[in-house]
Amino acid sequence: MIKVGIIGATGYAGAEIVRILTSHPEAQIVWYGSKSYVDQRFADVYRNFFDVVEDKCLDDNIEKMASMVDVVFTATPQGYLSGILTPEILSKVKVIDLSADYRIKDVDIYEKWYGIKHGSPDLISESVYGLCEINRADIAGARLLANPGCYTTTSILTAYPLVKKGYIDPDTLIIDAKSGVSGAGRGAKVANLYCEVNESMKPYGVTTHRHTPEIEEQLGYAAGHPITVTFTPHLAPMNRGILATEYASLVETTLPDGSKGYPTSDMLRSAYEECYRDEYFIRLLPDGQFPETRWVEGSNFVDIGFKIDERTHRVVMAGALDNLVKGAAGQAVQNMNIMFGLDEKTGLDMMPVFP
Amino acid sequence: MIKVGIIGATGYAGAEIVRILTSHPEAQIVWYGSKSYVDQRFADVYRNFFDVVEDKCLDDNIEKMASMVDVVFTATPQGYLSGILTPEILSKVKVIDLSADYRIKDVDIYEKWYGIKHGSPDLISESVYGLCEINRADIAGARLLANPGCYTTTSILTAYPLVKKGYIDPDTLIIDAKSGVSGAGRGAKVANLYCEVNESMKPYGVTTHRHTPEIEEQLGYAAGHPITVTFTPHLAPMNRGILATEYASLVETTLPDGSKGYPTSDMLRSAYEECYRDEYFIRLLPDGQFPETRWVEGSNFVDIGFKIDERTHRVVMAGALDNLVKGAAGQAVQNMNIMFGLDEKTGLDMMPVFP
Amino acid sequence: MIKVGIIGATGYAGAEIVRILTSHPEAQIVWYGSKSYVDQRFADVYRNFFDVVEDKCLDDNIEKMASMVDVVFTATPQGYLSGILTPEILSKVKVIDLSADYRIKDVDIYEKWYGIKHGSPDLISESVYGLCEINRADIAGARLLANPGCYTTTSILTAYPLVKKGYIDPDTLIIDAKSGVSGAGRGAKVANLYCEVNESMKPYGVTTHRHTPEIEEQLGYAAGHPITVTFTPHLAPMNRGILATEYASLVETTLPDGSKGYPTSDMLRSAYEECYRDEYFIRLLPDGQFPETRWVEGSNFVDIGFKIDERTHRVVMAGALDNLVKGAAGQAVQNMNIMFGLDEKTGLDMMPVFP
Amino acid sequence: MIKVGIIGATGYAGAEIVRILTSHPEAQIVWYGSKSYVDQRFADVYRNFFDVVEDKCLDDNIEKMASMVDVVFTATPQGYLSGILTPEILSKVKVIDLSADYRIKDVDIYEKWYGIKHGSPDLISESVYGLCEINRADIAGARLLANPGCYTTTSILTAYPLVKKGYIDPDTLIIDAKSGVSGAGRGAKVANLYCEVNESMKPYGVTTHRHTPEIEEQLGYAAGHPITVTFTPHLAPMNRGILATEYASLVETTLPDGSKGYPTSDMLRSAYEECYRDEYFIRLLPDGQFPETRWVEGSNFVDIGFKIDERTHRVVMAGALDNLVKGAAGQAVQNMNIMFGLDEKTGLDMMPVFP
Repeated sequence: MIKVGIIGATGYAGAEIVRILTSHPEAQIVWYGSKSYVDQRFADVYRNFFDVVEDKCLDDNIEKMASMVDVVFTATPQGYLSGILTPEILSKVKVIDLSADYRIKDVDIYEKWYGIKHGSPDLISESVYGLCEINRADIAGARLLANPGCYTTTSILTAYPLVKKGYIDPDTLIIDAKSGVSGAGRGAKVANLYCEVNESMKPYGVTTHRHTPEIEEQLGYAAGHPITVTFTPHLAPMNRGILATEYASLVETTLPDGSKGYPTSDMLRSAYEECYRDEYFIRLLPDGQFPETRWVEGSNFVDIGFKIDERTHRVVMAGALDNLVKGAAGQAVQNMNIMFGLDEKTGLDMMPVFP
Repeated sequence: MIKVGIIGATGYAGAEIVRILTSHPEAQIVWYGSKSYVDQRFADVYRNFFDVVEDKCLDDNIEKMASMVDVVFTATPQGYLSGILTPEILSKVKVIDLSADYRIKDVDIYEKWYGIKHGSPDLISESVYGLCEINRADIAGARLLANPGCYTTTSILTAYPLVKKGYIDPDTLIIDAKSGVSGAGRGAKVANLYCEVNESMKPYGVTTHRHTPEIEEQLGYAAGHPITVTFTPHLAPMNRGILATEYASLVETTLPDGSKGYPTSDMLRSAYEECYRDEYFIRLLPDGQFPETRWVEGSNFVDIGFKIDERTHRVVMAGALDNLVKGAAGQAVQNMNIMFGLDEKTGLDMMPVFP
Repeated sequence: MIKVGIIGATGYAGAEIVRILTSHPEAQIVWYGSKSYVDQRFADVYRNFFDVVEDKCLDDNIEKMASMVDVVFTATPQGYLSGILTPEILSKVKVIDLSADYRIKDVDIYEKWYGIKHGSPDLISESVYGLCEINRADIAGARLLANPGCYTTTSILTAYPLVKKGYIDPDTLIIDAKSGVSGAGRGAKVANLYCEVNESMKPYGVTTHRHTPEIEEQLGYAAGHPITVTFTPHLAPMNRGILATEYASLVETTLPDGSKGYPTSDMLRSAYEECYRDEYFIRLLPDGQFPETRWVEGSNFVDIGFKIDERTHRVVMAGALDNLVKGAAGQAVQNMNIMFGLDEKTGLDMMPVFP
Repeated sequence: MIKVGIIGATGYAGAEIVRILTSHPEAQIVWYGSKSYVDQRFADVYRNFFDVVEDKCLDDNIEKMASMVDVVFTATPQGYLSGILTPEILSKVKVIDLSADYRIKDVDIYEKWYGIKHGSPDLISESVYGLCEINRADIAGARLLANPGCYTTTSILTAYPLVKKGYIDPDTLIIDAKSGVSGAGRGAKVANLYCEVNESMKPYGVTTHRHTPEIEEQLGYAAGHPITVTFTPHLAPMNRGILATEYASLVETTLPDGSKGYPTSDMLRSAYEECYRDEYFIRLLPDGQFPETRWVEGSNFVDIGFKIDERTHRVVMAGALDNLVKGAAGQAVQNMNIMFGLDEKTGLDMMPVFP
């Protein structure tokens, strides 16, 4: 039984880790760490756990925690973990960080986009970027796991096979993403009040959203060179779900018959299948079908569809996932499973809840 | 492994049975019966099951099904099952009916409230009303199980202990219930379009809703005599969830100190605990707390709270559950577990999904 | 042209006064008073007024305002106005108060239910309770107008004719009300975040909500004696709208044919028509129809329906209005119109917005 | 007083025409035409008009209507009007068509994208495309007015000034649009049921949506040559509102200082102001601000914002409007005002309703 500690258990992502691990046969939460609710019963903060979780919230003392647990999940604000993490802690416990602190290898880029000083840049190099379907081998041996962002997971997985195969020009990539409100966290802000969000759509962070460099770095690895993309997140009036609609220009290539031309729909499909054929959590939709967030809600699935716009020689791709599951807690547990040698699906094979 | 057939698998309640049984370790669906989608893949009708359920929908031939499965769930319109069920079928297979056909013992009352002729009144007497927490013993031996309605389950469980104990006058009971839209089913009706329901609350079926006699019959058993209640359902703009707020006048009784008076809050709590102390799926909230549908969504829990209105000598009770789980498919599976001698929680211990 | 000042213009009710008065042909806002946004442009706080309202927010100095405007609307927290209002101010300007400070005549009841000390109890007696359809005559001459609460307006108008006529026993009155979230205001609280409210129904303030004594006082006037009611508010996942479902026992009376019996549906209808026949803003629905909040949204209408529950000799009534219009800003402007001798509908005849 | 007939008055767009005209001082509806609700009271179909509109629905006999009214609004399915419109009708009455029948000048393109035969291609040439802010002069003299689509109005107005000025390459234009559900109409379809739409985002009509050629034709006029764009509509869980996020590559040009380079933010702003400076219904947002549908709901405003993505030399533009107002009924009335020589704002200066 894996002993688990959570720092930031009372945020939405933290509580989703609790939801998942409560049904996980090989893990047990022994430390519900919180900043705001120390000594309060966890089930009083999240009453869905009433009569199920009896524990009280503890503080966020990672050193003490490190000596009691096998793995620490940190679902904390940007900059928090980098300020307290030390090699000594890492020598005792595995850390799965849901914040952005160890996702970006170039500390300057991190500090520029996040506007904060990184507290432990020396540890960045050893961190592994936990996009399970892409980095599985490295994840298995990781001590410090940088769990990808929600927008990032959607955006990368949707375009990755076509970038890797060279079928699209990655510098033409435009990502228009729509997210449910839980991605904004449980902080008490006017902007996230029911009446402010309900019955409205809005773009935000246009050209400046922090997930941009993370997308560029990972897709750059696939492309084999640095790339630049346009990324625009939007807030949609729903609790959960991210839908990323992505646009890119096709690149002329050698077709199966030896002639030159734009890749065909079959070629794109083969590229996706090559990457994802054996991936349980990635569901490649049939031709002409596009994902909808309702079909993945509550689950760890990512649904992906694509279609060529013959008139413009672009491809329109779309990916959908649950931002709190595959976009946060679910992927974190998937990473834990890989790091501890468990079947990757353990505790994660819940069906999407519809309606 | 229990072999399961579902008639009406492509309605919301039917699809929820699929969701639950897909994770049930002791049951296997072998027949996805449908009227509208025969020969179509079930996962094309409910794309949340894409890549998970590969089966096609079959027709709704209950006789053929009866020879292939151990239990048939019928999630069908009122009057359908009563028109086709026979003793012969029941001799081969257990039937768990999610419609109202066998819930009401007095066929005249059924025919009056539902406005349809009952097709097999002789079978009513052997049916067992499947409110698990109340009728567990009878359920165990049932062949024909009448699974309670969603409003009914909420309404009865919320008031049952106080009626049984005689602490409230059941004829003063007023039930004001609010339901999510999935309770209205997946039929294409203008009244259930997004724009008609969203941003609105409405009462419907005032004084005439068909769940009324079912509530009266069951609470009448608890009271020991026939009772009459006022029941008003409302449609609320949400997918899932029922909240029933119930009002009743307290009855003067002998208090613990021997004097006469209205029952105290402690006495009410004891009455609830007496009934529900050992019930996993019923969560009695602490004093002063009331249930909210968000805390039970996706789970089989019923949350119950109450408070005495000292100024009027009434008690205000409220119960909340997920209408598709404890109000339909979850309770049906709970009944199946009881009928097949399994642990009642098997396949049903999923946590509520929040947010 | 009536010159208007608003204290609390940047709350939801304040901003709704702005919306209505912007189209009012006889009124002009000259002071947008705010506590939190002084010196910021009003249209930066509420961007629906971009390019329409150019003014900046001013402070909330009521004395200075009193010398510049003809009427002050106060959309402020409970206790604020009672702490600053003086006879001198009232000698200069009419005040329409959307808070509860001057609604309840008995200051002890006010202080008990609101838990605050009233700052100017001497002024209570001169205040007029601004339920336009009931108190029109007194409103015309008022200097200090206590604008009714949103729950209160719905609850009272729905039951008033039957209480006044003696057709129902007011002490059996149970009011189960459902409100949209804008009623909770624009304060940044976790409980009102989108993800906390969306997809959920909850009761709150059970047996203790502050609108209770206000309902009891006004309906007590109609009954001719003090009454006690049970009132339970609920939060519903929608921006606007209140639906109050009300239950009361009918009282045996002399029927038209001289016999004794419970009042008939026709008699109840006559009672409603007697009170509301000439009221533009009250729409009495045809037999068997019940109000829905979607049909009044954005307008100053109150829709009312009722039905006798023959089996229990109760009547079920329901009223619906837009909590920010007839439940707050609209009624406040209606009161202003009456106080300044304008046609009551001036600036208020906007149609409900559907969908 | 302009006498108005409406064909399709009982659809969402038709009912919105009713809402607007009910408050219009110079117009009077004398014919509520409907296919499904003939002889039923209009207010029974849309109960927001209860006690306000007393008329019954009539049939859709346009010839008879033409002799009784000054203008006919047709809010009908594609292909309907083209099948019944004749020069004789147009000689008697002005027609404002909310369908697509006369929007596209090239009938082959119409027939290809809509998959229907055009019934009166000879009339296309005289029709005027009613995008008020662009075609005002021609609209004034029109007999047959093709009212633009909702997606189209948003998409064109947002990009028009930059295309016209040559600041962006129109063939790089990618439009990612999000619409509320009322755009899908009031037909009873499973896909538009509350539970199917709520809590979900989905793309649809990818690369094939019928508004594409309409956008291309109009922006092609601005560009001075035919263009091809990628347009992807999405369904968002809200009643009203369209948000179009648009992406295009900047074109190097001569800067104010004589050097070559990409146009600056100030240059883009000037381009917008040149076109829209005097337009009441177009609100150009300050630098760095983007539109949100909540700020225009219920009004005829279009809000537009933009930002240069310096890293990719693209501009991100966004426009928001209410699909039933500026995207349908409001613009239709605006066109009527122009065609009848009224002040363009008559009956249309309602403020956005928030929240």
